[in-house]
Amino acid sequence: MPYVNIRITRDGATPEQKAELIRGVTDLLVRVLDKNPATTFVVIDEVAMEDWGVGGLPVEDYNRSLEQPS
Amino acid sequence: MPYVNIRITRDGATPEQKAELIRGVTDLLVRVLDKNPATTFVVIDEVAMEDWGVGGLPVEDYNRSLEQPS
Amino acid sequence: MPYVNIRITRDGATPEQKAELIRGVTDLLVRVLDKNPATTFVVIDEVAMEDWGVGGLPVEDYNRSLEQPS
Amino acid sequence: MPYVNIRITRDGATPEQKAELIRGVTDLLVRVLDKNPATTFVVIDEVAMEDWGVGGLPVEDYNRSLEQPS
Amino acid sequence: MPYVNIRITRDGATPEQKAELIRGVTDLLVRVLDKNPATTFVVIDEVAMEDWGVGGLPVEDYNRSLEQPS
Amino acid sequence: MPYVNIRITRDGATPEQKAELIRGVTDLLVRVLDKNPATTFVVIDEVAMEDWGVGGLPVEDYNRSLEQPS
Repeated sequence: MPYVNIRITRDGATPEQKAELIRGVTDLLVRVLDKNPATTFVVIDEVAMEDWGVGGLPVEDYNRSLEQPS
Repeated sequence: MPYVNIRITRDGATPEQKAELIRGVTDLLVRVLDKNPATTFVVIDEVAMEDWGVGGLPVEDYNRSLEQPS
Repeated sequence: MPYVNIRITRDGATPEQKAELIRGVTDLLVRVLDKNPATTFVVIDEVAMEDWGVGGLPVEDYNRSLEQPS
Repeated sequence: MPYVNIRITRDGATPEQKAELIRGVTDLLVRVLDKNPATTFVVIDEVAMEDWGVGGLPVEDYNRSLEQPS
Repeated sequence: MPYVNIRITRDGATPEQKAELIRGVTDLLVRVLDKNPATTFVVIDEVAMEDWGVGGLPVEDYNRSLEQPS
Repeated sequence: MPYVNIRITRDGATPEQKAELIRGVTDLLVRVLDKNPATTFVVIDEVAMEDWGVGGLPVEDYNRSLEQPS
């Protein structure tokens, strides 16, 4: 009975793509660990850009910093 | 000083029901483990239906699949 | 299909007490929100004392600080 | 830059199986959402049987209850 | 490659304050544990007041209870 | 009343370093958001190397792959 939490930045994932993630992760747990899909939960959290940091910066600022000529 | 995270699908829990969950979980931790309620946190996350998967499907599709005649 | 995560410091909770937490939380979700117990997960994490901080201190140091005469 | 947390009961997953989960989830996020694998984290938590509840019971008791003739 | 999740009640944190949290936590992990900032994630979750409980009450009710003359 | 969860790979953080993380994160929340330290929790999870993946590989394999001459 696995519980999987997928956290991604909110940048336009569609319901179809989310359904594909749910199916893909569940299939993987069935195939690799023989888990029962009926008791496999997959929960997706979309996180606003301003709430996700990397490299010490909010993610949009971080991405811009990578694009800068040095 | 327990931290409890309750994750449920977003399908209409009222503020009163949430307050009842908070009180109930806190009382349980006080009764069973003698925890101090003043340092017991209960955080409820409501998750959109399209973001919760079970049986390899988003939860609404999954519920419909159970209702199908085979 | 709720998922509940209970995080407590590791200070001697017995398997019987954990079973009581699992039963109590599940009963609460059934009673308040009419959830299905068969798809209600409760996961308990015991956290070592040195890994839990409050008041800016590891929890044992914090508890000692409260006992000090000022 | 996704973060994925896979929580499973501790019942013998091997390092090879864990590596297969890590690879599979990462490939899925690359394929479905075009994420960068270098900033995709997958963290696996194995949870002791006595700490995982379902149906109001620790998981081993729950599994036994399903096997009982009624 | 640390992952840090900061959960706070939703009561007006600005994007600038969030950026300061992201920078501060990242700097701390670099300084104390020599972590690489490029693979340090900080994710902030703002939680609605009615979804955060302490002392057995939703947080606004709890705060009011502390202000009451006894 | 913030809750902060710091997840790092298990590679030798000392109790003193953990205490420094707890103090640093708490001070940051007090300074930036004027939070009350007495209700600020910081929980550190150390994760075994084989349970942490990045770039589609367990972290030790990933680090080795970066060191390879191409």
